[in-house]
Amino acid sequence: MSQSHLILSRRAADLTASPIRDILAVIDRPGMVSFAGGLPSSDSFPDLDRLRVPAGQLQYGPTEGEPGLRSKVAADLRSRGLDCGADQVLILSGSQQGIDLVAKLFIDPQTPVAVESPTYLAALQVFRFFGARLGAFAIANAGDLDAAIKDRAFVYAIPNFQNPTGKCYSEAERARLASACDRTLTPLYEDDPYRDLAYDNRDTSAVCSRLKRAPRIYQGSFSKSLAPGLRLGYLACSPGLVPYLTRLKQAADLHSNRVSQWFVLQQLNEPTHDARLASLRVRYRAKRDQFDAELERHFSELASWTSPAGGLFFWLALNTTRPIDTRRLLPAAIEQGVAFMPGEPFFPVPVAAASALRLNFSYAAAAETRRGLATLARIFREALGNL
Amino acid sequence: MSQSHLILSRRAADLTASPIRDILAVIDRPGMVSFAGGLPSSDSFPDLDRLRVPAGQLQYGPTEGEPGLRSKVAADLRSRGLDCGADQVLILSGSQQGIDLVAKLFIDPQTPVAVESPTYLAALQVFRFFGARLGAFAIANAGDLDAAIKDRAFVYAIPNFQNPTGKCYSEAERARLASACDRTLTPLYEDDPYRDLAYDNRDTSAVCSRLKRAPRIYQGSFSKSLAPGLRLGYLACSPGLVPYLTRLKQAADLHSNRVSQWFVLQQLNEPTHDARLASLRVRYRAKRDQFDAELERHFSELASWTSPAGGLFFWLALNTTRPIDTRRLLPAAIEQGVAFMPGEPFFPVPVAAASALRLNFSYAAAAETRRGLATLARIFREALGNL
Repeated sequence: MSQSHLILSRRAADLTASPIRDILAVIDRPGMVSFAGGLPSSDSFPDLDRLRVPAGQLQYGPTEGEPGLRSKVAADLRSRGLDCGADQVLILSGSQQGIDLVAKLFIDPQTPVAVESPTYLAALQVFRFFGARLGAFAIANAGDLDAAIKDRAFVYAIPNFQNPTGKCYSEAERARLASACDRTLTPLYEDDPYRDLAYDNRDTSAVCSRLKRAPRIYQGSFSKSLAPGLRLGYLACSPGLVPYLTRLKQAADLHSNRVSQWFVLQQLNEPTHDARLASLRVRYRAKRDQFDAELERHFSELASWTSPAGGLFFWLALNTTRPIDTRRLLPAAIEQGVAFMPGEPFFPVPVAAASALRLNFSYAAAAETRRGLATLARIFREALGNL
Repeated sequence: MSQSHLILSRRAADLTASPIRDILAVIDRPGMVSFAGGLPSSDSFPDLDRLRVPAGQLQYGPTEGEPGLRSKVAADLRSRGLDCGADQVLILSGSQQGIDLVAKLFIDPQTPVAVESPTYLAALQVFRFFGARLGAFAIANAGDLDAAIKDRAFVYAIPNFQNPTGKCYSEAERARLASACDRTLTPLYEDDPYRDLAYDNRDTSAVCSRLKRAPRIYQGSFSKSLAPGLRLGYLACSPGLVPYLTRLKQAADLHSNRVSQWFVLQQLNEPTHDARLASLRVRYRAKRDQFDAELERHFSELASWTSPAGGLFFWLALNTTRPIDTRRLLPAAIEQGVAFMPGEPFFPVPVAAASALRLNFSYAAAAETRRGLATLARIFREALGNL
């Protein structure tokens, strides 16, 4: 093939390697401790013995998703205060697909989009890929919020146990974002994959449930509460957006996997489902606390952090007056058998040196966590000492 | 929600309802005979009792797909003469996803793309959605072929048992397309979902296997040979395209369903797999022949057609000197309990009246086929009589 003759799209020319992808490529190495991905603990998954799939699930199915699953999701959202009928629910092939569909729906080159800073890097990649002009909003800045979101195509927010910071909006912040969206009529795209992973008592109600006028897209995932390999998520949106997102979904993959949809619905209908989630929270809470204790032991002089009230991540801000590009330290860490996620790719407005990193605490076992954090601290101590 | 305040992307403004979607929405009605979709026979699916999925399949997995499945696909393609390593294979969430990824890779507004006419309507929708300027090429026109594909971003072709026409390229036509792509260095995007559904003896070798210089993307599906509800397909491409398509895949849904990937690999490794496909062909051949006989009985004066040597569709050209818009007849047909696919949406350059329709023969049972074709013939006879 003569690559030089290829004429690719403008967006393809901007395609850059994904840090998530490059890192996931190495975490399979034997002995590697990975704090990098957002992987659930592998022993947290439901029992697959119940996977007796009816043969009917093997035929083509509806683009919107299985009716039973859509109803179940809608009922669950209503129980959380979100006014939602089954016909507003679209089953997704993982919530990453929702990001692709919403980007397709709203973003042309130079379309302004408001996002948190830092925020989920794979959302940034997709929004940029479609040409978005990204601007940050800060939920804590009450005064500036309207200006920061007005005239944006939409606001993308992760109010619960955010990726990467672990931050959970206060009730006042939820109210503030909802009223700013309503005042400016800015659509709210609320990404909520971690809602079931709350370890401390926090308000985790959907910001979308507070909207009175603004268009809304609320998105959830079964990857964290059930299992990522099933690749299933959902969105629930304003009635007027349903036909658009359904057609975009159809063009993307016709419909989502029906074996997974069947299995997830069985799991949600299990009388033990809530108990399973509660037990998952107990285990993840213990993992978080162990991780926090190990961080205290190794990183207390090197970095500052807040123990997250939920989700999967610690966000460490390095104690340094001279900014440090944490990407530079990744090769050495991987060389020494530890993977982490550098902070830089999470920023909507590119930063040369974030002096911050994201650490996942759900995946590694206790002994790995001890060993991995000791190694990582050594690497960072040396780097900070050399500044 | 105040819909009037929504600012959608330019491409979203062009989103139109999909005929496939609108029709699939009605075929669940009790008593409806559907010749409309491309649904495999529901009793053709593999036995799900073997679905004892290892728990490891529930974790996140590689974007490119399960290594074992990629190797299996590559070996299969090599056995069909396509030079291909496992690292050139990307597992897809159904081959529809391949269309989305390839469109993202190549198409900007006004990018020229060469397609057959008529061709798969959901490909046309996606190409248009990204802004392609579609131009038709005719494989039968040897002289014009170079001019029709030169300077196009790629050629999209379905050489085996095409959707909608059922046409299968001759060996000479395969050679002609390959050498035209090589001469003009136009990338070939070969969509081959029906290759396992060959009922008569035909050359079904991949046109991509004949390419010497042009970039290539060959795409296959497990929806027809195994089951559509698993939503799994694959592509194999020139080495230089792998990183681009992998990143696009990651942005779209991280990776494909791992339960399906596991199950499909088990099925492909079954010693009985080839026998199962052979038996599927026997049954579909009989269905085709029954359908052909019923068409002879009811449509011989109304339309012309060629019995397809493979695939899932008959393409009927109505015998009329005055063009007829077959979309106009769909509501009456559905009212009388029969669904068919109007011909118009399959044309890359819009036609007001195609005087043609697509009929699927794999899904309906024998008695339904008899009843449905009799009803349909009555509707078309009346319409043609009223011209």
